[in-house]
Amino acid sequence: MSAYTYFFRDDYSEGCHSNILRALEENALTQQIGYGNDDYTLEARAAIAKLMPAHNADIHFVSGGTQANLVVTAAALKPYQSVISAQTGHINGHEAGAIEATGHRVEIIDTEDGLVTVDQLEPLIAQLGNANSTQPGMVYISNTTELGTVYNKATLSSLSVFCRAQGWYLFLDGARLPAALTAPCNDLTLADIAALTDAFYIGGTKNGGLFGEALVIVHPDLQTGFGYHLKQRGALLAKGRTLGLQFRELFRDNLIFKLASHANATAQTMARGIEQLGYSFLVPPCTNQLFPILPKRIIDGLSEKYLFHTWHQIDEDHAAIRLVTSWATPDAISTQFIADLANLGTEV
Amino acid sequence: MSAYTYFFRDDYSEGCHSNILRALEENALTQQIGYGNDDYTLEARAAIAKLMPAHNADIHFVSGGTQANLVVTAAALKPYQSVISAQTGHINGHEAGAIEATGHRVEIIDTEDGLVTVDQLEPLIAQLGNANSTQPGMVYISNTTELGTVYNKATLSSLSVFCRAQGWYLFLDGARLPAALTAPCNDLTLADIAALTDAFYIGGTKNGGLFGEALVIVHPDLQTGFGYHLKQRGALLAKGRTLGLQFRELFRDNLIFKLASHANATAQTMARGIEQLGYSFLVPPCTNQLFPILPKRIIDGLSEKYLFHTWHQIDEDHAAIRLVTSWATPDAISTQFIADLANLGTEV
Amino acid sequence: MSAYTYFFRDDYSEGCHSNILRALEENALTQQIGYGNDDYTLEARAAIAKLMPAHNADIHFVSGGTQANLVVTAAALKPYQSVISAQTGHINGHEAGAIEATGHRVEIIDTEDGLVTVDQLEPLIAQLGNANSTQPGMVYISNTTELGTVYNKATLSSLSVFCRAQGWYLFLDGARLPAALTAPCNDLTLADIAALTDAFYIGGTKNGGLFGEALVIVHPDLQTGFGYHLKQRGALLAKGRTLGLQFRELFRDNLIFKLASHANATAQTMARGIEQLGYSFLVPPCTNQLFPILPKRIIDGLSEKYLFHTWHQIDEDHAAIRLVTSWATPDAISTQFIADLANLGTEV
Amino acid sequence: MSAYTYFFRDDYSEGCHSNILRALEENALTQQIGYGNDDYTLEARAAIAKLMPAHNADIHFVSGGTQANLVVTAAALKPYQSVISAQTGHINGHEAGAIEATGHRVEIIDTEDGLVTVDQLEPLIAQLGNANSTQPGMVYISNTTELGTVYNKATLSSLSVFCRAQGWYLFLDGARLPAALTAPCNDLTLADIAALTDAFYIGGTKNGGLFGEALVIVHPDLQTGFGYHLKQRGALLAKGRTLGLQFRELFRDNLIFKLASHANATAQTMARGIEQLGYSFLVPPCTNQLFPILPKRIIDGLSEKYLFHTWHQIDEDHAAIRLVTSWATPDAISTQFIADLANLGTEV
Repeated sequence: MSAYTYFFRDDYSEGCHSNILRALEENALTQQIGYGNDDYTLEARAAIAKLMPAHNADIHFVSGGTQANLVVTAAALKPYQSVISAQTGHINGHEAGAIEATGHRVEIIDTEDGLVTVDQLEPLIAQLGNANSTQPGMVYISNTTELGTVYNKATLSSLSVFCRAQGWYLFLDGARLPAALTAPCNDLTLADIAALTDAFYIGGTKNGGLFGEALVIVHPDLQTGFGYHLKQRGALLAKGRTLGLQFRELFRDNLIFKLASHANATAQTMARGIEQLGYSFLVPPCTNQLFPILPKRIIDGLSEKYLFHTWHQIDEDHAAIRLVTSWATPDAISTQFIADLANLGTEV
Repeated sequence: MSAYTYFFRDDYSEGCHSNILRALEENALTQQIGYGNDDYTLEARAAIAKLMPAHNADIHFVSGGTQANLVVTAAALKPYQSVISAQTGHINGHEAGAIEATGHRVEIIDTEDGLVTVDQLEPLIAQLGNANSTQPGMVYISNTTELGTVYNKATLSSLSVFCRAQGWYLFLDGARLPAALTAPCNDLTLADIAALTDAFYIGGTKNGGLFGEALVIVHPDLQTGFGYHLKQRGALLAKGRTLGLQFRELFRDNLIFKLASHANATAQTMARGIEQLGYSFLVPPCTNQLFPILPKRIIDGLSEKYLFHTWHQIDEDHAAIRLVTSWATPDAISTQFIADLANLGTEV
Repeated sequence: MSAYTYFFRDDYSEGCHSNILRALEENALTQQIGYGNDDYTLEARAAIAKLMPAHNADIHFVSGGTQANLVVTAAALKPYQSVISAQTGHINGHEAGAIEATGHRVEIIDTEDGLVTVDQLEPLIAQLGNANSTQPGMVYISNTTELGTVYNKATLSSLSVFCRAQGWYLFLDGARLPAALTAPCNDLTLADIAALTDAFYIGGTKNGGLFGEALVIVHPDLQTGFGYHLKQRGALLAKGRTLGLQFRELFRDNLIFKLASHANATAQTMARGIEQLGYSFLVPPCTNQLFPILPKRIIDGLSEKYLFHTWHQIDEDHAAIRLVTSWATPDAISTQFIADLANLGTEV
Repeated sequence: MSAYTYFFRDDYSEGCHSNILRALEENALTQQIGYGNDDYTLEARAAIAKLMPAHNADIHFVSGGTQANLVVTAAALKPYQSVISAQTGHINGHEAGAIEATGHRVEIIDTEDGLVTVDQLEPLIAQLGNANSTQPGMVYISNTTELGTVYNKATLSSLSVFCRAQGWYLFLDGARLPAALTAPCNDLTLADIAALTDAFYIGGTKNGGLFGEALVIVHPDLQTGFGYHLKQRGALLAKGRTLGLQFRELFRDNLIFKLASHANATAQTMARGIEQLGYSFLVPPCTNQLFPILPKRIIDGLSEKYLFHTWHQIDEDHAAIRLVTSWATPDAISTQFIADLANLGTEV
């Protein structure tokens, strides 16, 4: 039994949605072929494909995000090619060197808000053809970003046009893609994502599943031999049915998007409460991650009841904390959090 | 709905045991810390540690066997070291080059029955110190082997003594270790395994779990930094709770061994039936894998109702097939299989 | 000063041919651009290209054979692909895991005489499309082989046709290619080699150079980005001129082939002498490596004056030794060796 | 015949010193054992060891700097460890991903002058123990740096103390170490370098050799198995004698340091001339690399007679160029360059 009232630490602190458990129970004794050739995986693939009607994507299910990132990178790049990432990108410094362990360099670009833009990529063209330099081969972005910000259609389209002109793959880490696509500030659809990127994934881990990510391989060149890459990196589950069944349920009646909408709506309610108490944010709140800037005394007070990360030191007396809501966050909790924050008093 | 009466193809065709589903349901909304620091993982570790009272092993949970094999190899070996495996070993030719992708050579030794012995390892000493040759650094074995055979205490002890004398790690792939330890021909305990090897794992995938393996790191040098290796290879689940909870249930009241005993007993019943019909086996049946040698006409007949692998051509008219029973194989099915085999008539 | 009369240990025991030293002296103070863009390298490339008039090959110079083998493998294969080699092949077990360190498996085929044939490759087709198996992507051969045997045009042509049908690269290790192409048993030209393989190299180390190999990349897909692979593996010399000048001299007036002819002729003279004394060979002598089978007493006697490898135990009393002649072996030495062998008496 | 009066592009534009050629000629037909076991290599090792009397270092000779860097990194680090380098370091962005291809991340720190200091390293301690982050395992520095600056004894000592406290290796890239140790601003000896670092190399390529670097492995843990690492990365020359003989000559009577002194003195003469014409430098001139800041009109004028790199844009009208002198730069050339620079007139 936890000493905390609630964890706002991340969106994977709970188990999974009841629909998934029900499906697991109903099919527990049904025999299925292994390695992703089971009926549930086929049904999950079909459900996802229906959301991208114009695309012949291959869909694979893997157990986690770092795994998805390293398999795609290993499959996409020639040995001398690098992957470009924002400084804040998950593959840069948050995966214990998983990308480098496949032999590839992560080229870093600085961003304010976690979003990569064409302006930031253009300087990298200078190193093309330089025999002493790695050659960019892929751009890695995440949506939502690590800061909870989202790509709009214009930005993603121009990135896509630029990458295609360079012959670079565009890969989107969608661990929180459902939160992005259901955000009030969003103007993209899953079909747009499939049209504008070469590969992306849709997170189950952070959106109500027991674990797992749905990896969508759009570019035909990346599809070739992808199964071997999965197997070689230990990313192909013998019991693929466990992943297939989860994603079948998550995509039945748009469940995954409903769950993300709940997380977003809860966060927005909290954001309004925080603003009304006079606090500002490190980045404008839009999805299920909030980065309010609070006095350290208040942060200490909140820490007694809530679990969360202190994200960034602002000055000697202030820091931005990260609050993450999930598919399972009760409304009563968000209300209580704002009340507790109010009770901790104002800054002076 | 499958056209087959039953799959004897492998022991991971079903979902999972009901105790696991019940636990997942009970804890679905309980919040837990991520990355294997949840309560369930701690409880699972404690339950496994209790079976090896004399050992200070570190226990980690990973999603699959290839992943376990590649992480241990990457952690154990220096770049110029190789891992030794039987020709039939899973890491040799069944993992799409997963070991080589970590930079290491698999040195192959031929075996009749899948078991590695000191006699077979001794010739490798000749390449020690040869600057042009990789240097052995680890011996990989599996128990049960790919042929369903098991190590006895004498053989494993002499392997252990030999490896320690050479300074080579001894790593045991235990995807089917519960079947081995509950086999009638077995004289080893889990505590023996911990005493005689440097690392091993206990499979959940093939023993009633949704997925996952419990990796036991015995040697202190292998324990250092092992968490980084897991993260770097994409083997650390954010929702470690999903693995922890499964293994807590599998090791509660020896469930995992009871499930393996059922699989073994079912296979032994079938083996006796097959023998009574006059057929012999590629290797003596002992665990939940049977390799009867049958006429091709009979194999064709069985194939209409049952799904299984044809394993090895014996001669123009005969082949050994592989029949695998599982924790979930109903008794009625094994009885029916023998009846169907009898009905297909005798060889002439 | 060595205690031995002569080393028959290998063909790289001496320094280098005087033409190379003269050229190094003449150009010692001439400034040149680095990294293989110097005039000498251009001239060396042109000289080699003239011997393969129908081919648009790219030519690079690297410092050694293992380096050539690992760069070509890294450039040619996708992560899940393997390279096929004869058991006796240099990349299999003689390079301390250099190929595996680039992430690739070496698939071994057994040969009697070191030559790879289509018959031996055909069984590997079975593992194509098997998701658990590495996929062959390149065949590695050497000419001469490690046993001094050579490919004839018919065998190499059928290998080439087979590999192209499979979409596998064919790579020829030519550390001793000059010896092969000038052997009495040879019917291939350098132009044939360029027509039938996708990449190969011509050894300078074993043919009168200070060091270095001329790497010829024939297949256009392998040419793309090859310079980056060289740099990434530490195979691009800043002072490329040192390699360029050597190969310019080695290919001026066919010097490299004249040197190889001398080595071959010396070996053939010795072979006839050995045969006349009643001894046989492990493989029929054809190039500058001889493998006579001798009584151990005789081997011991020879060992007092000559340095050579004992290659293979034949029986309790006999072994095959390896005698290697070089571009620099004096005629007087080969005559003396036969006289010494005769003086050691006959077997009984 | 070059259209330029002189190349100030680098210090490896010429062939090699006449003493080396004389030695190669004298020993051309002497037979020696391969793979670095020849007499010349033994003599070269002894000559270098004499300069570090208190240390039991292992000394190996390799063909180039990138090769030295990647072999040491592969030998020193565990898979999850990273190497720290200045942004300007050669391993960061100048080696086509050679370090990453061995599986390791390069952690970058910003420096003004190319020198790494303890202050800059301290923030990296924060990521120790963070399971999501690579763990630093080695610090890479170069002396001279890429900007021609040199470490003094105080700075290198404090780096050494800090690294040992952390358990991180300290590796010094000495492609231009002779220039550093003979610079007027230097207070270090080769014996100091051996006392304060764990591994370093002394460049032959940039100091009058045909090619090659002398790699000194000081730390006993790095010495173990180092020969296998060399072989595995293609860095072990069969004709090790070619490297051994060069370094024997370079270390006979301090030749390598005399050559470096000449390059330094020539550069200092030019630096004084440039200063007297009123120009300043990007970094204070100390060794054989000068970075004068010149108006673009003047740079264009110089470009017609001299080959050099434009290094860094200062503003719209000015850039810093890089002028490198070598062991072979004639005094007449440095005099002429200053005269030509004067003739191009003053800035206005």
